[in-house]
Amino acid sequence: MRRLLLTIQYIGTRYHGWQVQPNAVTVQELVQDAIEQVTGVRSPLTGCSRTDAGVHAEMFCCVTDTASAIAEDKMVAALNAWLPTDVAVIACREVAAAFHPRYDARGKQYQYRIWNRAARNPFLEGRAWHCRRPLNVDVMNRAAQDFLGRHDFSAFCAAGSEVEDRVRTVTESRVSEEDGLVTFTVAADGFLYNMVRIMMGTLLDIESGRLEGNVIPTLLQSPDRAAAGHTAPACGLYLTRVYYD
Amino acid sequence: MRRLLLTIQYIGTRYHGWQVQPNAVTVQELVQDAIEQVTGVRSPLTGCSRTDAGVHAEMFCCVTDTASAIAEDKMVAALNAWLPTDVAVIACREVAAAFHPRYDARGKQYQYRIWNRAARNPFLEGRAWHCRRPLNVDVMNRAAQDFLGRHDFSAFCAAGSEVEDRVRTVTESRVSEEDGLVTFTVAADGFLYNMVRIMMGTLLDIESGRLEGNVIPTLLQSPDRAAAGHTAPACGLYLTRVYYD
Repeated sequence: MRRLLLTIQYIGTRYHGWQVQPNAVTVQELVQDAIEQVTGVRSPLTGCSRTDAGVHAEMFCCVTDTASAIAEDKMVAALNAWLPTDVAVIACREVAAAFHPRYDARGKQYQYRIWNRAARNPFLEGRAWHCRRPLNVDVMNRAAQDFLGRHDFSAFCAAGSEVEDRVRTVTESRVSEEDGLVTFTVAADGFLYNMVRIMMGTLLDIESGRLEGNVIPTLLQSPDRAAAGHTAPACGLYLTRVYYD
Repeated sequence: MRRLLLTIQYIGTRYHGWQVQPNAVTVQELVQDAIEQVTGVRSPLTGCSRTDAGVHAEMFCCVTDTASAIAEDKMVAALNAWLPTDVAVIACREVAAAFHPRYDARGKQYQYRIWNRAARNPFLEGRAWHCRRPLNVDVMNRAAQDFLGRHDFSAFCAAGSEVEDRVRTVTESRVSEEDGLVTFTVAADGFLYNMVRIMMGTLLDIESGRLEGNVIPTLLQSPDRAAAGHTAPACGLYLTRVYYD
C-alpha cells in the first residue's frame, strides 16, 4: 500500500463543506468517488480540516491509501477526469505511512475576501462577500494586529464545538486592500470552529463602531462569544495554505 | 430625454454574446429587460461593440435614452436588482445627446487569458483557456511586438466579415505571465471580427513551432487568413477597457 497526499482546490458554493454527511453533497464524497473510479477500490480519505458549507479552498490536503501502481502525475489527470469542474486535484505525492494531514500540519492560512464597491462584481459572485459601505482598512488592520500571538480564542469559537483546548497561536493577521478587494489574511497553528468568520465579523463590527476598537484584547483575556462580533458569511472564506515540515 | 452611458461587466459563458438575436439569450436583451422594468419603457440600447458568445467583459459601454428622472447612482442599484448575478451595471452617467458608444470610442483593450499549468484550475473554469503544455512566454511576447503599429489586419479577420477597411492601429501588444496565468494584452483603435482570438492563435502557433517566428510581419504585408493561426477559444477573451476622450 502507498499513502498518497492529494492537494486539491475547490469552489465551495455547491457543496456542504468537506466532510461526508447524509443527504448532502460534500467534497470528500466527490474525491472518494473519483478515487474509486480510478483505482477500483473505495478507500478512506482523511482531510487536513473540515471546511464549512460554501467555504472555498485554494489549497486543501488529504491522504488516501492505495494498492494502485498508477504514477503520481497520471493520478492527478485521472482523478480530474472524474471530478466536476469546481473541484480539482492539483498535486499528488507519496508520503510516509504514518503521515497525517491534520496532525502533521504545522499550521494553516485562511483569507477572507470582501468586495467593497457599491456595485456588485459578477466575477466575484459567491467568491467574496459584498460589502457596499466603504471600509476603513487602516482601522481593521490595526485591530487585526491584536490577534497575533498565543491566546485563548474561546470568544471566537462557535457554540456547539466540543474542542477543550482553545489556545491557538496566530502568526499572521492583517487586512489589506487592492482594487476594491479587501482581504483579511490570518495564519495560525490551528483554528476553532468558525474562528476566522467570527474574527472577520469582529473586525467589521469594530470598523462600523458597533464594537470598541480595543475589544479584541479584552475578549482574549475574558472569553465571551456573545461579546465578540457576528459570524461573517461563508462565501468570502478561503483556505489558502496548509503548512507541513 | 436624457442619454445615459452605462458601464457594465459580465461573464459571457451563459450568453450568446452582446447583440440581441432570435432564440438565444444575449446580454443586450437582459439589460434592455432591466431598463424596461425600472423605467417602464422598452428603449433601444446601443453597445460599444459586439462580443462573441462566451466572451467576457470587465468593461463594456452602452447608451440608452430615457425620460426617467431616476438619479444616476439609484439607476445602477435599480438595474442590478433586475439583472442575473453574472451581469452587473457598475456605473451610469448622463452624456451628450450626440454621444455614440462605438463611434466615439478612441479605442479598446482586450485581454486573452490562458491557465498554463498541467492541472486545471477550478477558479478559472470557463474564465481562461486551459493550455497544459508549458508556454515560452518570451517567444510569444517577442512575436506580439510585431502587431504594434498601423497595418492591414485582413489576415486576422474571420471569413464572413463585411468590413471593408481592415487597417487598424495597435497601440499595446504584450504577453506576460503571473502565477501560471499567461495574459495577452492588446489595445487598438478598433478590432475586426475574431481579430484578438486569431492574433492569440497565431502567437500560440508560433510558440509551438507550427508557424515561423517571423510570420506576423509577412501576414501584415500580404494578408492571407489561411496562413495565420487558429482562432483561440472564446472562454479566454475579455473586453477590458473602452477608451473615450
